[in-house]
Amino acid sequence: MSEISYFLNNLDEKGKEMHNLMKDLYPICRSITGNGVRETLKIIKKVIPLEIREIPTGTKVFDWTIPKEWNIKDAYIKNSKGEKIVDFKESNVHVLNYSVPVHKKMSLKSLKNNLYTLPDYPDWIPYLTSYYQENWGFCMTHKQFEGLEEDVYEVVIDSSLENGHLTYGETYIEGSDENEVLFSSYICHPSLCNDNLSGPVLLTYLAKQLAESDLNYSYRFLFIPEAIGAITWLNLNEQKTFRIKSGLVATCVGDPGSLTYKKTREGNSMIDKVVEKVLMDSDEPYEIIDFFPDGSDERQYCSPGFNLPVGSLMRTIYGKFPEYHTSADNLDFVKPEYLANTLEKYIKVIYILEKNKKFLNLNPKCEPQLGRRGLYEMIGSQKKEDLTISALFWVLNLSDGSNSLLDISIRSGLRFNQIKNAADSLVSKNLLEMVKE
Amino acid sequence: MSEISYFLNNLDEKGKEMHNLMKDLYPICRSITGNGVRETLKIIKKVIPLEIREIPTGTKVFDWTIPKEWNIKDAYIKNSKGEKIVDFKESNVHVLNYSVPVHKKMSLKSLKNNLYTLPDYPDWIPYLTSYYQENWGFCMTHKQFEGLEEDVYEVVIDSSLENGHLTYGETYIEGSDENEVLFSSYICHPSLCNDNLSGPVLLTYLAKQLAESDLNYSYRFLFIPEAIGAITWLNLNEQKTFRIKSGLVATCVGDPGSLTYKKTREGNSMIDKVVEKVLMDSDEPYEIIDFFPDGSDERQYCSPGFNLPVGSLMRTIYGKFPEYHTSADNLDFVKPEYLANTLEKYIKVIYILEKNKKFLNLNPKCEPQLGRRGLYEMIGSQKKEDLTISALFWVLNLSDGSNSLLDISIRSGLRFNQIKNAADSLVSKNLLEMVKE
Amino acid sequence: MSEISYFLNNLDEKGKEMHNLMKDLYPICRSITGNGVRETLKIIKKVIPLEIREIPTGTKVFDWTIPKEWNIKDAYIKNSKGEKIVDFKESNVHVLNYSVPVHKKMSLKSLKNNLYTLPDYPDWIPYLTSYYQENWGFCMTHKQFEGLEEDVYEVVIDSSLENGHLTYGETYIEGSDENEVLFSSYICHPSLCNDNLSGPVLLTYLAKQLAESDLNYSYRFLFIPEAIGAITWLNLNEQKTFRIKSGLVATCVGDPGSLTYKKTREGNSMIDKVVEKVLMDSDEPYEIIDFFPDGSDERQYCSPGFNLPVGSLMRTIYGKFPEYHTSADNLDFVKPEYLANTLEKYIKVIYILEKNKKFLNLNPKCEPQLGRRGLYEMIGSQKKEDLTISALFWVLNLSDGSNSLLDISIRSGLRFNQIKNAADSLVSKNLLEMVKE
Repeated sequence: MSEISYFLNNLDEKGKEMHNLMKDLYPICRSITGNGVRETLKIIKKVIPLEIREIPTGTKVFDWTIPKEWNIKDAYIKNSKGEKIVDFKESNVHVLNYSVPVHKKMSLKSLKNNLYTLPDYPDWIPYLTSYYQENWGFCMTHKQFEGLEEDVYEVVIDSSLENGHLTYGETYIEGSDENEVLFSSYICHPSLCNDNLSGPVLLTYLAKQLAESDLNYSYRFLFIPEAIGAITWLNLNEQKTFRIKSGLVATCVGDPGSLTYKKTREGNSMIDKVVEKVLMDSDEPYEIIDFFPDGSDERQYCSPGFNLPVGSLMRTIYGKFPEYHTSADNLDFVKPEYLANTLEKYIKVIYILEKNKKFLNLNPKCEPQLGRRGLYEMIGSQKKEDLTISALFWVLNLSDGSNSLLDISIRSGLRFNQIKNAADSLVSKNLLEMVKE
Repeated sequence: MSEISYFLNNLDEKGKEMHNLMKDLYPICRSITGNGVRETLKIIKKVIPLEIREIPTGTKVFDWTIPKEWNIKDAYIKNSKGEKIVDFKESNVHVLNYSVPVHKKMSLKSLKNNLYTLPDYPDWIPYLTSYYQENWGFCMTHKQFEGLEEDVYEVVIDSSLENGHLTYGETYIEGSDENEVLFSSYICHPSLCNDNLSGPVLLTYLAKQLAESDLNYSYRFLFIPEAIGAITWLNLNEQKTFRIKSGLVATCVGDPGSLTYKKTREGNSMIDKVVEKVLMDSDEPYEIIDFFPDGSDERQYCSPGFNLPVGSLMRTIYGKFPEYHTSADNLDFVKPEYLANTLEKYIKVIYILEKNKKFLNLNPKCEPQLGRRGLYEMIGSQKKEDLTISALFWVLNLSDGSNSLLDISIRSGLRFNQIKNAADSLVSKNLLEMVKE
Repeated sequence: MSEISYFLNNLDEKGKEMHNLMKDLYPICRSITGNGVRETLKIIKKVIPLEIREIPTGTKVFDWTIPKEWNIKDAYIKNSKGEKIVDFKESNVHVLNYSVPVHKKMSLKSLKNNLYTLPDYPDWIPYLTSYYQENWGFCMTHKQFEGLEEDVYEVVIDSSLENGHLTYGETYIEGSDENEVLFSSYICHPSLCNDNLSGPVLLTYLAKQLAESDLNYSYRFLFIPEAIGAITWLNLNEQKTFRIKSGLVATCVGDPGSLTYKKTREGNSMIDKVVEKVLMDSDEPYEIIDFFPDGSDERQYCSPGFNLPVGSLMRTIYGKFPEYHTSADNLDFVKPEYLANTLEKYIKVIYILEKNKKFLNLNPKCEPQLGRRGLYEMIGSQKKEDLTISALFWVLNLSDGSNSLLDISIRSGLRFNQIKNAADSLVSKNLLEMVKE
């Protein structure tokens, strides 16, 4: 991996590109299966190479079975005047996701059994699903719901639930090492931005950058339906998972809130230490929370039979922002600058993973004489934060073969980058040597 | 052990029963030996089966020797008008416990050498003893002491200190496992309620309930004189102590204060974790303090040659309530509701000890599909706190053979009962299996 | 080592003696080599035996080379009227330490390139050095600097930089054990008191006291030039360093601030625990800071190739008092009472190191009967703090062969001295036995 400054270049521009990709993906009605997923992956594939897999309905994946494929053409509720009072074409969250086909006339009273609203947020439409229990329904604002009059309503959901496939996309970027870093996002929500178009668009542009780099680790990016997709991928790739040495689930990465890191199940994995250090170095507010077995796809990666070192680096965690799973989680809620800020953190995480080596002080008895090797001049010629005498001393003192650069940066309280620069300078003066592992 | 609800039934009633037993025991003049102890044990034996042991005076028990047996019929101080100004029959704490027999006439000045009062609490009589140094004395209120006039006083202590026995009681409730839980209380204080009639009455009713149950552990209840009794029991049972896997000293369990747990010497024994969890789950204030080698019979159980995992679960710790070792520690100070509240905690401790098993997730790779097994309906059919989806996830996620239900409840922050219910539900659906140990 | 009271006797007097020795040393112009060091060691040698070593210029010591020896006779700046406006004879910090010889006339503008001041402290002269880069210069108050007029100045530095020696002093006090405690101070600063005449004068009087004692450990005291001296000593004594089990660098030990302890590189060495306990027992404010690889000679002792358990017990740490490395770090800034207070702490550290044994409770099953052995009387006959029942219980309870007296004092929260007294009393009653190691 080349210098981090290259990766952190043009973050503003990248924020806009991510947001533009999100705009393209926003209108599509996605679900855990169906053409919405295929369209989504096709658009992402314009930006990065993507292998798209189709797993047939009925395939057993651990305790689960790939469900029937759901597709939808149209849906609406018409009043007796023939006016569409709820229209899927206006917003795809109007339909209870995975609704079975319906076409009937109903009284208001009867209809109400299949209507869903958010009384606490009367202007927002809730997003709801019924994947594993056949059902149908409409979601609408509570304000509209309260204005509904006695009438005979025509209800149409022109959907299909048939044998088909579960579709997902995958990108693998080969590094010099077979050990992998996993980035996982889900592509099963319809027009909802923070949860979770923000995840796939961030990973798309992260993968794009990595694909252009020389890397130590190999990197795998998943664009899968949540839960059943992760279960499917783990089932199909069970023999390969031992290579995953670190991983992050990317969800809720574009809202205005500060960063949140949910730790891995073990809580002391390399990725935990790396993300903590990135957040600590950021001088921005952040929160670190312990693993809990509810949430997104870390539920599957961290199930006891896998126990993979996968955490989740988010902004505001799912469920904790009011817009969560409502029509208000839209293109205005997620902003380019927040996407860019999160991307920066993901890049810094990768940078530490790539650069976190152990070194050996080649002059371990007493300090080496830095002056006669021109190291004081090196410090003078750089910006103050980039190379400091303190960082040189820390690297020399702790490079006894047991401490990595990350360990040294944590113990010293200095930024990883300062420690890395100090190590580079000392290597250039033959005072330090990388430990082969 | 059957359901905890059964044990926690009628706690109010049990509080009253314990307090009534205390009323029966209150008037008896107890000491570390003598007929007071025998009468006490006889009354307890009406409630639970009790083996009563008599150890002869002069028996060597480790560094100690069973002392002469002390008995007392009467004691008083008469003034020259023949009025009993201090009368043992009014309160047995008037007599310095273990006083040798005395019958003489004395000036006030001379008498004062053998009078004990509490200047800071002028209405209370102090409780004092002189077991291992022959002495005699009277305890009285400071108020009365200050009103004493110059006179010739007749002093009578009609006691005896002769070869006899040390008496104690023991109940053993056999479980399916030879490993034991020890509950120890002392029965050597005269008319004093919190310290310590509260201990034996609580253990009496705890033993009564356990005797009716199927148990995994075996349970041993001791009703012994403090210090010399614990030393004697340990001496006689040295070869059996290895079976004691957990233990509690019950003292000061009936006052209005909140609960206090004094840890075992090791500080990280099973009983320490269990009691901490019971207190944490209680939503009541509590305090946990580290072991210190002073105190009650944990001094002996936790001496380095035994180092048994014995803590002490109290309300206000000895010495920290002003009524401690005074006539004010009476039947009004200890109330049925406080006894009942402490009993509840002891029952919950036993419940966790009995039920704290390890389980294995039988579907460890990714989550099992709870919906098709009706687990969501199970949740719906119960009260919200009793079974939650979160508890199911925690049990599934951590049941990898290394975590017990207690471990899972501690890590999740959920109540033990919720974790236990979740495990039961999952076992009923063949998703979980108990680990045989 | 006899009783600590003997050592702590007359601390006031010792404070004055240390300050008087400092007064004798103050006027000498020291540097890392030269006659100033020799004179300094000669004066110290009047108080304690001292082996003085001379290491020739050009000797290789690890990555370094013993530099040329620097000596100076005089230095001044004269204005055109012939007035000495800066005079080395008034203060030896006026000269940039290790200045090469100079004799020339210069304009003010040109002269200013070689003048150093402290704009923030306009009345103080800074102390500066240029050991490894040939240079010359004068240090002066900023106030004087600002008053300098256009003129032609005559600049004289009558110094020499020639092949010679590096000089240092060493005292070794043999104990019954070959394992050593190292005390290191430096003697390379000219007229500067806290940093660092305070270090050598404190160690001088500490060594004086130890020389009169029977000791378990052996003690080594170093009086060396900073950095190059420690590097030299380590180079010459590399094979012996394994005997150093604890060590302290003594610097900044005479200022009005409270005590600061900088831990060893490992952070959990015996010396770390001992110093922490001494400070905790002191009832004075203090600060404990983690090791960092900058600072004084702990940089060398704690370099990874040695990693010796050497910390530094100071008052205000170098760089954190404004007088640091200025003419204001003078005989008024360091006071006898502060030197005495620090000496007391060093003595207490040594006392714990010497007395920190493990003991075995010879009556480990239940408590021994203290009464019949007269231990309660022993308590009564001593001052309350010196021997307490609580200390006896703690020592008996934890003396299972795994806990040292220091461990017991830390766990109990009692002072080391109380635990030590309790152990002595119990040994005298045959209840305790020292563990041979």
